[in-house]
Amino acid sequence: MTSTPIADLWPTLPGGADARPEAAYRLLQAAVESFAERGFHATTTRDIATGAGMSPAALYIHYPSKAALLAEISRAGHAATLELVRAAVAGEADPVTRMRRLVEEFTAWHARARTVGRVVNYELHALPEDAYAVVAALRLDIEREVSDLIEAGAATGDFEVAEVRIAARAVTSLGIDVSRWYTGRSSETPEELGRRYAELVLRMLGARV
Amino acid sequence: MTSTPIADLWPTLPGGADARPEAAYRLLQAAVESFAERGFHATTTRDIATGAGMSPAALYIHYPSKAALLAEISRAGHAATLELVRAAVAGEADPVTRMRRLVEEFTAWHARARTVGRVVNYELHALPEDAYAVVAALRLDIEREVSDLIEAGAATGDFEVAEVRIAARAVTSLGIDVSRWYTGRSSETPEELGRRYAELVLRMLGARV
Repeated sequence: MTSTPIADLWPTLPGGADARPEAAYRLLQAAVESFAERGFHATTTRDIATGAGMSPAALYIHYPSKAALLAEISRAGHAATLELVRAAVAGEADPVTRMRRLVEEFTAWHARARTVGRVVNYELHALPEDAYAVVAALRLDIEREVSDLIEAGAATGDFEVAEVRIAARAVTSLGIDVSRWYTGRSSETPEELGRRYAELVLRMLGARV
Repeated sequence: MTSTPIADLWPTLPGGADARPEAAYRLLQAAVESFAERGFHATTTRDIATGAGMSPAALYIHYPSKAALLAEISRAGHAATLELVRAAVAGEADPVTRMRRLVEEFTAWHARARTVGRVVNYELHALPEDAYAVVAALRLDIEREVSDLIEAGAATGDFEVAEVRIAARAVTSLGIDVSRWYTGRSSETPEELGRRYAELVLRMLGARV
C-alpha cells in the first residue's frame, strides 16, 4: 500500500490498495488536485499526466479519458463514504450512539478529505451518464442508511422528527458542506468538529442528550 | 427594471436595478450560467458574450474581463445575502422569531437562487485578490450577524449553545449547501424547505419550540 493521501483516504479501492499499480494512484491524486483547483472542464489530460510525472500516453495505459478518472474518483469516494456510514450505523448500540458515531465520522471524513470531497460533490454534472447512474445509486444508499437510522430512533422514542426525509437531508448536507469551508487553518481538528456536529445533530433530531 | 432572473435575485445591484443597462444584466446572467455549468476556468469571454447575444467586443464595454464579471457576481450575491440576513434579524422580536425568519429566508434564497449560489460559493478561489478581500469581508459580516443573534438568544435563555462560532457555522452551512442539492424537482418549495429547516435549526440551538 502506498502512502499517498489518495490511498489513505480510500483504502477500499476495488481489489484493495495493494492491487493497484502505484502509477494509477499518482494519476488519481493528480486528477483530484487539478479538478478541485480548476474544475473538470478546464483540466486537460496533459495537466493530469504532468501532475503525476508522466506522459499523456502513459496516462492512457491506466484510464481512457479524464472522464474515466472523474468517474473512478467519484465512484470510489462515494463507495468509501457509504462504507463509513454502514460501519458507523452497524451494531447493537442504541440509535443515539449510532447517530453520534455516524456524524462524527462523516464530518471528520469531509474535513480530512476535503479536496476529494469537493470533486466528488461539485463535479457530479460532469460525469458520463453511466458513471452518474452508479454514483446516484450510491448516494441513494447513503441517504437510506441515514433515514433508516432516524426512523429506528423515532420508533424507540429516542428521536422526534417531523419529516424523516428532510432531517436525513440536513444531516448529510451539514457533513458534505464541511468540504467546502474547512481548511488547514480551521480552529478544530476534523475529529473535534465531528464531535461538535454530532451534538448539534442529536439535538436537531430531538434526542435528549 | 428588467425581468431577468438576475434582476429578480439581486434587486440591490449598486445604483438600483434601473441604473444598469439591460446589456450588463444579460452578461451577468450569461456569466452565471456558464460559470455554474462549466466552471470559471473553462468559460471564455466569448462563451459569455455569445450567451448574452453579443460580440466579445461588446462585452468589454461593460466588463474588462471574465474575472471582473465573477467579482461582480460574487460581490452582489454576497451583498444581497447580507442584506437579507440583516433584514431578517432586525427588529424588536425575540431571538427565536428572528432566527426563524433568518433561516427561512436564507434557505429559500439558496434554493431559488441556486445557480447563483453555486457560483458565489464554489468559485471563491478564482477571484482576484482585491475582489476576494471584498467578499471575505461580506462573509465575515454574515457570520457575525448569525453569531450575534445566537449570543442574544443565549443571553435571554432562549438558546443554549456550547460554542456559538460552531453553531453559527452550522446554521449558515446548512443554508448554503441547499444550492448544491436543491433542484426544480425537489419535493418542497423553497419556502416550505425554509420553514422545515428553521424548525431543525431552532432545535439545534436548544430552543424549546
